[in-house]
Amino acid sequence: MAQTRKAAERVSDACERLARESDVWLATSSEGRPWLVPLWFLWHANKIFLATSPASMTAKNIASHPAVRLAFQSTEDVLILDGTAEIHRASDVSDDMFVSYTAKYSGSDPRTWDDAIIVAVTPDRIQAWRNEDEIPGRVIMRRGQWVTTAD
Amino acid sequence: MAQTRKAAERVSDACERLARESDVWLATSSEGRPWLVPLWFLWHANKIFLATSPASMTAKNIASHPAVRLAFQSTEDVLILDGTAEIHRASDVSDDMFVSYTAKYSGSDPRTWDDAIIVAVTPDRIQAWRNEDEIPGRVIMRRGQWVTTAD
Repeated sequence: MAQTRKAAERVSDACERLARESDVWLATSSEGRPWLVPLWFLWHANKIFLATSPASMTAKNIASHPAVRLAFQSTEDVLILDGTAEIHRASDVSDDMFVSYTAKYSGSDPRTWDDAIIVAVTPDRIQAWRNEDEIPGRVIMRRGQWVTTAD
Repeated sequence: MAQTRKAAERVSDACERLARESDVWLATSSEGRPWLVPLWFLWHANKIFLATSPASMTAKNIASHPAVRLAFQSTEDVLILDGTAEIHRASDVSDDMFVSYTAKYSGSDPRTWDDAIIVAVTPDRIQAWRNEDEIPGRVIMRRGQWVTTAD
């Protein structure tokens, strides 16, 4: 039986995965229709940065409805983030972000893509659980603040 | 370099995963806010059946906005399904479905849960791709019909 992790351990696991994992599922919506796509991401300056086409449904949805939900792949080690997304032109985003993004993705720099906008997600709530026993205490970020007190 | 699969192979891979995999990400929405949760599912009679609580955001969203999108966990071997969801009381769903569901999930029968409704999703469009080369021809079901002609 896996041990039930305390809040501080879940936060440190989440930070480690935000730094390490390569892909995230990004859910957006408009007019009662959900959209869900896998994207590369970078955790940088307490935000999640993603690059996509301005013609994508993701970009269109965010322009009218900035509430988004992201989830890492695993359904056994769940990490779900709710946040607010903003769309930026690449020229409005710091070089720092692109340096880190490009280092993470083997040299792929969105500024050199045909056409890319940058989505910056500010997380508001994060949930993490591995099993039924971890459902209580699953909220590890609330109103943008990590929850680090023991549950 | 992985081979680019033809439509018929993608369809057979999709059917195999619909039968084998245990969890799916289910995206729903209402009022411009997406929702995304991992759920057990059963592929049965050409629909995806999922059990959840009537008090869940998923159930509430579907009641007002039946368009849903489902994705399997992997972002390297993508399988995304768009469909229309209906909510049924357990007593309105065939015994066959529950027998198969219970066999799949080691004896867990939603009819014995405290409170469960059944979500039945009729797929309309399914996309499958493993890499950039597979983006053309990624639509393997269109208007509810499997695409089996070579692309």
